[in-house]
Amino acid sequence: MGTDIAIAQSNKMLPITQIGQKLGLSADDLELYGNYKAKLSTNALAKNASKPLGKLVLITAMNPTPAGEGKSTIMIGLADALQKIGQKSMVAMREPSLGPVMGIKGGAAGGGYAQVVPMEDINLHFTGDMHALTAAINTLAALIDSHLQHGNQLQIDPRTITWQRALDVNDRALRNTVIGMGGATSGVVREEHFQITVASEMMAVLCLAKDRSDLKQRISNVLIGYTFNKQPVFVRDLRAQGALTLLLKDAIKPNLVQTLEHTPVLIHGGPFANIAHGCNSIIATDAALHLSDYVLTEAGFGADLGAEKFLDIVTPKLAKKPDASVLVATIRSLKYNGGQTLDHTQEEDLTALRAGFANLQRHILNLQKFGLPVLVAINQFAGDTPAEIDLLQKLCSQLDVKAYPVTVYQDGSLGATELAQALVDLPDTAQYHRMYSDQEDISTKINKVAREIYGAKSVAFSKKALRQIKQIEQQQWSDLPICIAKTQYSFSDDPKLLGAPTDFVLNVQEVNANLGAGFLVILTNNVLTMPGLPSQPAALKMDIAADDTITGLF
Amino acid sequence: MGTDIAIAQSNKMLPITQIGQKLGLSADDLELYGNYKAKLSTNALAKNASKPLGKLVLITAMNPTPAGEGKSTIMIGLADALQKIGQKSMVAMREPSLGPVMGIKGGAAGGGYAQVVPMEDINLHFTGDMHALTAAINTLAALIDSHLQHGNQLQIDPRTITWQRALDVNDRALRNTVIGMGGATSGVVREEHFQITVASEMMAVLCLAKDRSDLKQRISNVLIGYTFNKQPVFVRDLRAQGALTLLLKDAIKPNLVQTLEHTPVLIHGGPFANIAHGCNSIIATDAALHLSDYVLTEAGFGADLGAEKFLDIVTPKLAKKPDASVLVATIRSLKYNGGQTLDHTQEEDLTALRAGFANLQRHILNLQKFGLPVLVAINQFAGDTPAEIDLLQKLCSQLDVKAYPVTVYQDGSLGATELAQALVDLPDTAQYHRMYSDQEDISTKINKVAREIYGAKSVAFSKKALRQIKQIEQQQWSDLPICIAKTQYSFSDDPKLLGAPTDFVLNVQEVNANLGAGFLVILTNNVLTMPGLPSQPAALKMDIAADDTITGLF
Repeated sequence: MGTDIAIAQSNKMLPITQIGQKLGLSADDLELYGNYKAKLSTNALAKNASKPLGKLVLITAMNPTPAGEGKSTIMIGLADALQKIGQKSMVAMREPSLGPVMGIKGGAAGGGYAQVVPMEDINLHFTGDMHALTAAINTLAALIDSHLQHGNQLQIDPRTITWQRALDVNDRALRNTVIGMGGATSGVVREEHFQITVASEMMAVLCLAKDRSDLKQRISNVLIGYTFNKQPVFVRDLRAQGALTLLLKDAIKPNLVQTLEHTPVLIHGGPFANIAHGCNSIIATDAALHLSDYVLTEAGFGADLGAEKFLDIVTPKLAKKPDASVLVATIRSLKYNGGQTLDHTQEEDLTALRAGFANLQRHILNLQKFGLPVLVAINQFAGDTPAEIDLLQKLCSQLDVKAYPVTVYQDGSLGATELAQALVDLPDTAQYHRMYSDQEDISTKINKVAREIYGAKSVAFSKKALRQIKQIEQQQWSDLPICIAKTQYSFSDDPKLLGAPTDFVLNVQEVNANLGAGFLVILTNNVLTMPGLPSQPAALKMDIAADDTITGLF
Repeated sequence: MGTDIAIAQSNKMLPITQIGQKLGLSADDLELYGNYKAKLSTNALAKNASKPLGKLVLITAMNPTPAGEGKSTIMIGLADALQKIGQKSMVAMREPSLGPVMGIKGGAAGGGYAQVVPMEDINLHFTGDMHALTAAINTLAALIDSHLQHGNQLQIDPRTITWQRALDVNDRALRNTVIGMGGATSGVVREEHFQITVASEMMAVLCLAKDRSDLKQRISNVLIGYTFNKQPVFVRDLRAQGALTLLLKDAIKPNLVQTLEHTPVLIHGGPFANIAHGCNSIIATDAALHLSDYVLTEAGFGADLGAEKFLDIVTPKLAKKPDASVLVATIRSLKYNGGQTLDHTQEEDLTALRAGFANLQRHILNLQKFGLPVLVAINQFAGDTPAEIDLLQKLCSQLDVKAYPVTVYQDGSLGATELAQALVDLPDTAQYHRMYSDQEDISTKINKVAREIYGAKSVAFSKKALRQIKQIEQQQWSDLPICIAKTQYSFSDDPKLLGAPTDFVLNVQEVNANLGAGFLVILTNNVLTMPGLPSQPAALKMDIAADDTITGLF
């Protein structure tokens, strides 16, 4: 098999107008970005908003190994397989961030024969959404610092500014900086901590907005800091929401592309899955629901983080509740969760697999608690043995859940036809409900997720967290869903606690209000919101030759 | 008259494919960005490269008042007028920078009835070129700091790093910063001075590249700092040129848009006019020359800076030497240069006008020294009196130069038909030659421009400049054109010295080698490469309504 970029570049794409036609979209409904990318126009979104809604399928995963379990690849291949068996399917997924592409990943639009194309554009600047966000984020920051410079009429305490500049670059040197040096004409000296663009609240705001006027409202509500008298200051106090919405006028429109097998894909927005909700935009998922019969969408990280947030934060804002879930597992990750060391997860080990199944089992039960039917997709690797696959299928069937080996990476749609058929044959039994109601106490909401989903025996709050909860309650900001930031490797807040731990306490360190996004961020540990580059960054292997051949995007 | 944005939004654009057809370009030659913007594909550029070359007309100006003299507006209106009288005309011009749009300007794509549209897109993200540059600039910076972090194999002295991060935001607080704080995992502590994107050498590199392979070569040659042993370190030493060229693979393609009267316009690149050469890309001007009979292009600031750089730095790289120049003057600026205070330049003052003509006269003579025929365009304002216009025309005719009142801001193409006809009727007398040869001594080159163009009696070099010149000579980097950074308000380095001063010394403070761009930057004063926002930034007046009406882009 070739590299992802070689497979992608040797593939023959259809003009995006033809992909649009599949969805009943005319050329006027599309704003083209070259021949193979388009934004759905505001008109197209409005026109299709009354069409019947397709089925919504959440793609999620067990707790991963550090190598990841191939959730996006499975989703893309499954959408292709649904198309292959005659269904009108679509994918709604997140946009890759350029920083990690240049750092470790090399690319993030599926893999092998289950990719979204043009992968080089999707992985680089795509249609400019990330750059528009970066511009909006930094324009807001410059407006804040300019306000300090020109008399600080709002009396903002520079030490309390929570709005952070951002770049879509993995740049550890910008994590902790001092800005505004150089005397009276060059700003007010203060600390600044740059984030990567996808970690900024502006990204979550874009992804949770229903439309442009909701976007403007949410931007208005973003908290940027406090006055010397400890009163909150919002974007609306600066009167910056008009310019920022203008900067995002195109970024809010979802982007249409295609898989290698020409299945339509909407790629739009990509917030962090810890300090934010880790799902593509509401607008894209809703649009896909109006345009096709099956919409596959994924949530970042494992189901404890991703699915929970999709179901508790995102779903209430969607046009439709999910109809089913596909839980991605790998034999490798099951063995890893069963105590096998990473180095040995390639070797057959039924004992470890059986032990690790506890992890998958809890995710299955959790999804059922939300009222969702579950199908397990086994992302099959070359080293997986028949005995292992067989054991996993048996363990699943003991829970009345079917598990299907999937080989879309190697085989494209043919690697998931059985799973696709199972999805189509699934009876309509979904009975969605949330884990908590927004009106409950903050600590009650946290406790419910921690106990019901994570399996914690209790929750401990730091003094800081308790103080912050009190402030949030005093400000009457508590009636919001919670967004817990936690390691993706464990149900607990300890990345080493694999499997299905129970006897642990979830430690809440901080509670912050993201009033634009509309959720409370619950930090259980420090989350690095600006990654660094490794010693051998992927960028150093990238090149484009005279004949347009691109190398180094994996 | 309405605002610029109101005029622009009420205008009916043609689909950009139709504009392409005017130029003999098929739909395949264009990479669409929506219906009204397109990039010329690499194929289209190659296919047209053998076509005959049109006439090249440089639009430049006398020294301006702080309000500017409307050079772009005149250029756009004149191109429309040429089209009106039956000529196949095009404009090649610079891309606006988002920072100033949000700061003071509100917009920069012409004005009134001589605009390029869609002005809101051109002024905001356009086709993403600026953002791609910003990403490339900051990716390079992150790679440098990551190199320091991971063992610093190249032994780069952090205190000597010349490569600066950039944002397309007016953000004074980023002029002087300290980065890399926060301990051993978050970089190496050092100073960083952010620039605005258009001030970065990367912008000049893009604009002076002939094609993508030249771009990669130029990027390879960019100097990023020195080792502890004082040896230069280049981008090629980091092996980053492949990734950076990949990031600019689309940004290097020129952008096709149209005027309000549907004249084709290429907008591409926009370097600073002081520390860089202030002209749109070589690729865009060359493409326009192959696609039309008259190409109008402008150079930033007055002719002392802009035209000189266009003629000494840019022209040698173009497919064709310029055939003529149009020198833009205003009655207001003539009076200002003749000693009248800004407040009173609206009042008739023939004495000040006569005195200020010395400034225009020197620009006329300078352009003639380069071998260019000159036409003067009087950008007419409501307050200009017939006696003033008449006097200016007489003064010009005493130099055998014709001056035409132009009212394109109010009247569109009809405001410049006389000038357009004069341009068409101009005999082919251009005999282009440069002010110096690249092989001359650095100080000789500076002296020639200072004496011949600026009218200085001599040049004085600071100790630092002399040391830098010596280093540059030792490194054998001296055979490059010079790019002098100087105030735009005077022929001298003193912004208060108006008119046509002669008895002054040009003070050279610093000499830096921009080896990627391929010129030596000669600083006569401190140039602010990161602007700030004013106390009432334009951004605060911007908005987009539910019906897509945009306000606040002037």
